[in-house]
Amino acid sequence: MKKVKIYVTLRESILDPQGSAVQGSLAKMGYGEVEDLRIGKYLELTIKDTERDIDTLVKEMCEKVLTNVVIEDYRYEVEEAN
Amino acid sequence: MKKVKIYVTLRESILDPQGSAVQGSLAKMGYGEVEDLRIGKYLELTIKDTERDIDTLVKEMCEKVLTNVVIEDYRYEVEEAN
Repeated sequence: MKKVKIYVTLRESILDPQGSAVQGSLAKMGYGEVEDLRIGKYLELTIKDTERDIDTLVKEMCEKVLTNVVIEDYRYEVEEAN
Repeated sequence: MKKVKIYVTLRESILDPQGSAVQGSLAKMGYGEVEDLRIGKYLELTIKDTERDIDTLVKEMCEKVLTNVVIEDYRYEVEEAN
């Protein structure tokens, strides 16, 4: 069994209004030190042992379902799990 | 300047209907290998150099604004940035 952690972020050129809103709230609450804040997704998948190549599998799922490749980037890590 | 990466996940005991829905879609598309899928948030903050202790600052922001400690766990990493 494998544990896959996927980090999905908006591409640098894409505005992140949700992140800006949260940054604004933090500034009003006295956390003006925060210069930039961007919000992405974090996915944890548990994947059964399979004959398919794990990298191919994860990339396919990311590109077809889990991310929007037009506006998002992703990276992932694969760990052995029990 | 520091770059802080915060990973927010639902506590294990909390159901994740969004994750289950995505897992269901993947299964229908031929990715039945995925046994479990949970979706959380991933935040990237850029924080100006400050006299405040960075760990205290990040924990305060997480607990007051960025996460819901009743249903979510978080962990974070601090990196030096230029």
